[in-house]
This record gives sequence, structure tokens and C-alpha cells, in this order.
Amino acid sequence: LKEIGEVCESHGVVLIVDAVSSVGGVPVEVDKWGVDVCILGSQKCLSAPPGLGIVSVSGKAWEKMEERKEKVKEFYLNFLTWKEWWLEKREFPYTHSVSLIYALKEACRMLLEEGLDNVFRRHERVAKATREAVKAMGLELFPREEEYCSATVTAVKIPRGVKDEELREHIMRKYGVMIAGSWGKIAGKVFRLGHMGYNAQPSKALQALFALSETLRDLGFPSRTEEALDAAKSVLY
Amino acid sequence: LKEIGEVCESHGVVLIVDAVSSVGGVPVEVDKWGVDVCILGSQKCLSAPPGLGIVSVSGKAWEKMEERKEKVKEFYLNFLTWKEWWLEKREFPYTHSVSLIYALKEACRMLLEEGLDNVFRRHERVAKATREAVKAMGLELFPREEEYCSATVTAVKIPRGVKDEELREHIMRKYGVMIAGSWGKIAGKVFRLGHMGYNAQPSKALQALFALSETLRDLGFPSRTEEALDAAKSVLY
Repeated sequence: LKEIGEVCESHGVVLIVDAVSSVGGVPVEVDKWGVDVCILGSQKCLSAPPGLGIVSVSGKAWEKMEERKEKVKEFYLNFLTWKEWWLEKREFPYTHSVSLIYALKEACRMLLEEGLDNVFRRHERVAKATREAVKAMGLELFPREEEYCSATVTAVKIPRGVKDEELREHIMRKYGVMIAGSWGKIAGKVFRLGHMGYNAQPSKALQALFALSETLRDLGFPSRTEEALDAAKSVLY
Repeated sequence: LKEIGEVCESHGVVLIVDAVSSVGGVPVEVDKWGVDVCILGSQKCLSAPPGLGIVSVSGKAWEKMEERKEKVKEFYLNFLTWKEWWLEKREFPYTHSVSLIYALKEACRMLLEEGLDNVFRRHERVAKATREAVKAMGLELFPREEEYCSATVTAVKIPRGVKDEELREHIMRKYGVMIAGSWGKIAGKVFRLGHMGYNAQPSKALQALFALSETLRDLGFPSRTEEALDAAKSVLY
């Protein structure tokens, strides 16, 4: 991201980053990396209830918005509305979700109490444990190169003979664990194990990995549960 | 509204109604009255936490939207997004405020448990008590004709010698009661007493009316507190 930021900077281009699944799980240095607009939601790594969109906006991005010949006509989703009302007058432009804002405040306070470095280490550790366990089950990561794998979600190829929907329905119904499918080209071929926010914990990871391995076995794939849990354990403890 | 609905109907025009302060406090018969789009919020008469916009859309309004030559480009605030995803596929188009939806569901359940007729009568009674009390204090309603007064909010002219901001700040600081100012032409000249949802209750009304009358006295206006409370009481009990 830092390299992309430098290219954008040198061309006077605004860099907009969807960091919904990153902020609160891995370091995101918007100022250092030249990210002009960074967008996140309340419900992922921050672990607040869903419903709030959160953005940071650089001076350059504000200028670009104000220089537009044809201004954005929106009110509700217009950043300039917020600049005028909130940043300048300290008033909300419309009735906001007060209860969600308090929840977000508390969620941020909890992150700071744990310490951001500890939070990032916890995510990294759970992600590594997940990857090791999944490989030990006999599955293949997607992408295969671990340097490209996220610390907040692990994507895995669905093995031959197992069907995406069946996998996700079975693990939910029998073990109460929800995992995600995929979109676009990889839909039906890759599933995703989220481990962000309060789900990025050793106990939750072990529970989910056990459920995944047993589900695969239930569906006829010879997953190696014991090896998988051992692999996770050796990273986590 | 019914008469306006008939005129709109005969001209093939879509009638859009902002019913944010009405639905849940007074009867609003969208189908009978020909209201094509009725808009409300979770936070007023429904008494759920703020954060949700709620709409009803008539068949005619859907047709108009679909017939547009240039479709609305929006995703987030586009009704057609909701038609396609929610009404047709029963899926949410994006992550929604789950906790607020549960809260809204419970708020609606509470309204139905009380019975809508009872809810409407309660609002009407509290509104009438408020009007009688305010007049007994020596104040003037806005508008003066009571047939135009709302059952969910009472607007009152600020008497000579009392300043809008001083009034609202004093009643908040000393008595813990928040009242609203006004916008536009009547800003600074009219204040508003909300009595909607869980605030539309005899005990809350009496508390607020007492606080209002005493605030006026504190600020030099010779309000008649005893007469005001008597007037409210004779409507409420």
C-alpha cells in the first residue's frame, strides 16, 4: 500500500482504500502510507455492532472534493455535508445512530486497553494457527503464497468431492459455526474463515478449526483433525 | 392528506409523505389515503433507537422508478436495490444494523401489545393536556387553531422578555428536560414540546410542564404553574 501511495502522490491522484476488514486487525498507517480516504465499518475488526461507516479523509481529498466543478448533489452520503456540519459546526447533519456510536466508542476503548500491538499480534497468531491447521487437514490455501494471506481472514480451496453450500450449511447446523463463501470467479471454489475482532482468539479458532475438520470428515473428505489441532496449538500456546 | 392523495391519484403523481413524527402516534393509512411513499424513522413515535429509515412503497411508486429513462445511479440509498435484493431474493444488499433491527422489532411489538388504538388515544390525551396547560400558563399555541396542532408535538410562542436559547438551556440544566427550538422563519420565536412514543405519558407530560412553567418564572415570566398542572390533570386523569 505504501508503494501505491507513493505513485498516487506523485501523480496527484487520491488513494481510496477499503480497509473494512483490516483496521483494528493489522496496522494501517493512513498518513505514513499516503492513504487519502480510508473506509471502514464498525462491525469487523473493531467488533462493534454493524451499522456505522467510518472514514478518514486527507487534506488533499478535501481539496479535490471542494475543487469539483459539479458538486456532489447528495446530502446523506456526501462527505462535504459532514465537513460543514460536524468538522466546522460540531453538529450532526441529521439524526444519527446514537446507540451505535456509544458501542463503537466502547469497542475502540477496549482495543486501546488491550494495546494495538497486542491486538495485531493476536490477529497474526490466530491467522498463522489457522493456516497451519488448514494445511494439516490436507487443504490448500488461497492464495497459496502465505505472504499474501490476510491476518483477519483465511481463504481455503474447497477440496474435490465437497460442495460449497453443503459444507457451509453442515458446519452451521451441526457445529454452530458460520463460515463464508466467495464471490465472482472463485464463488463455490473457495471458502473463507474469518478471524477478526473478538473472533480472533485461540479458543474460538480451535473450536472453528475442529468444527471444520469434522465437517469435512462428515462429508467424506479424510481430514486429519488431530494433526490440524496440534498444528494450531503449537502456534497458539 | 386523504384529499391531497386523491388529487395526486387523479394526476398520476406520486405522493411522498414525511411521516417521521406521525407513524406510531397518530393513524396514517397509506393505502386508504393514496400515500405512495411513506417515510419514517425508528427514533420518534416508534421509540426504537435512532439509526433506521423505514419506508412503504406503493405499486405505482415502484412502476415510476422502474420506468425512469435514466435510472438512479445510487446503490446504498436506491429503493430499487432493496426491491431486487430484499423483496425478490430475501437478502440484504449490504451489512445492515442488525442490533437496531431487533430493537425496532421489539418496539413495534410493544406498540401492538398496547394496541394501536390505545397508543393513538394516549398521544391525543397527552397532546390535549399539554395544550391546555400551556394556555393556562399564559402562553400562546403555534398555530393558534388547535385543529392544526399535532398529537405528537406542541409548538408554543416564546413570550416577550424570554429568550429562546436561555429558555432551553435553563430547563435542561436545572430540570433535566430537553425541549426543541425551531428552524427557518420561526427560529427563536417558537419552541416545541415533543410528546411522542414513550414520552407521551401522563407522568412525563406533568414533569415537563412543571419544569417549563417554573423555568418561565425563573426567567421573569409570570407563568401560572398551579393552573397549568390543574388543566393538564383534568385532561389526563
